[in-house]
Amino acid sequence: MLFFTQCFGAVLDLIHLRFQHYKAKRVFSAAGQLVCVVNPTHSLKYAPTLCAAAQTSTEQGILPPCHHHEAVHDPQLVPCVCPLFSCPWEGHLEVVVSHLRQTHHINILQGAEIVFLATDMHLPAPTDWIIMHSCLGHQFLLVLRKQEKYEGHPQFFATMMLIGTPTQADNFTYRLELNRNQRRLKWEATPRSVLECVDSVISDGDCLVLNTSLAQLFSDNGSLAIGIAITTSKVHNSEAEM
Amino acid sequence: MLFFTQCFGAVLDLIHLRFQHYKAKRVFSAAGQLVCVVNPTHSLKYAPTLCAAAQTSTEQGILPPCHHHEAVHDPQLVPCVCPLFSCPWEGHLEVVVSHLRQTHHINILQGAEIVFLATDMHLPAPTDWIIMHSCLGHQFLLVLRKQEKYEGHPQFFATMMLIGTPTQADNFTYRLELNRNQRRLKWEATPRSVLECVDSVISDGDCLVLNTSLAQLFSDNGSLAIGIAITTSKVHNSEAEM
Repeated sequence: MLFFTQCFGAVLDLIHLRFQHYKAKRVFSAAGQLVCVVNPTHSLKYAPTLCAAAQTSTEQGILPPCHHHEAVHDPQLVPCVCPLFSCPWEGHLEVVVSHLRQTHHINILQGAEIVFLATDMHLPAPTDWIIMHSCLGHQFLLVLRKQEKYEGHPQFFATMMLIGTPTQADNFTYRLELNRNQRRLKWEATPRSVLECVDSVISDGDCLVLNTSLAQLFSDNGSLAIGIAITTSKVHNSEAEM
Repeated sequence: MLFFTQCFGAVLDLIHLRFQHYKAKRVFSAAGQLVCVVNPTHSLKYAPTLCAAAQTSTEQGILPPCHHHEAVHDPQLVPCVCPLFSCPWEGHLEVVVSHLRQTHHINILQGAEIVFLATDMHLPAPTDWIIMHSCLGHQFLLVLRKQEKYEGHPQFFATMMLIGTPTQADNFTYRLELNRNQRRLKWEATPRSVLECVDSVISDGDCLVLNTSLAQLFSDNGSLAIGIAITTSKVHNSEAEM
């Protein structure tokens, strides 16, 4: 009986997560800026039942430490960079975007400046909010993650990564901006390449970090609006350093 | 023998802290901005031996919750707002600045834009870096605090408070800016009044918050430069909200 209850619970959880992942990502325009409503997805990447088969003997291989699947034979192939699922896919960098859209249903938005509106910020960690952003001839992956680095103290981590090489990434600067209740918080940095792995960027803390109280101050009715802008690095470098 | 060793250690600690507190706060100008080198001070406010006498029966009084001393008889008198020491002083708001300078040796700097260079960021929590900033006809108290909200995980909290009433504080906006290694972090907010108590601002997390890894990314040789600018609120309000 206990076994049956547990199985039933697990199936319900999976159905619920599947439903969340496919919920429509609404897009509308406010004050001239494209606003993209992004629903949360509970990360399944580290769920032991789904990854066990893939995490066999390849962890000491030549792959980036966060990707756990079969060894890459062609050095030009890159593993799947989806932060949500442990996926055995591999392919050329040029087709990563179409893989993320088609297989992982990650939306892509056009525009130099967009507003990323993450809903349901109260959901428990680990939870991810993800979109792709097409801008200046390149595609970027924006990841907002709620994670408990310290047990019982969830934090929010937001970063932008170029779907391209580290050398290409050096040409850009991204800006994340929160603005509410007479408070403003801006983070500007060079995006990392998706080849560097979003998990290590977040564990290094080299991104916009919000504790729960700050996230609440910037949230409106459980949703957090993050203004996103991408520029070429020349703009950033020409500004006077402090 | 053990007793003697402990006493000697405690005396040495006190001498060291005293020395740190009186170390010269150097001021120089770089690239047109006033740079103020601020040395750390180990907070003695919550040291049980120093506060025990003052924390007797006044905690349930009408004073702000963070100030522990004799009841205020004249409602126009305010308690000492020094974040470092539990001090029995009380006086009118107009003489708070001279009390902080003369009794607690907190430096005051002039200028619309200054750079606060906090040294020895590696020192263990709790540690405070404090200056006063005179600007637009008012005085502000800038506090950078290293504190362990979660044991073993020190964080840095920076805030600016007006040495004035909450109504006066609403007329200003302060900006704290970190800029290094192709990363930039900006925090803008309305200053709180010192009457609201810096400890509660920090415990609410309503300030610039840095974890250790971000603080290291922005530090240079153990020192953290924070650019500070104060404007009247009209500038802030006229900017388009997101």
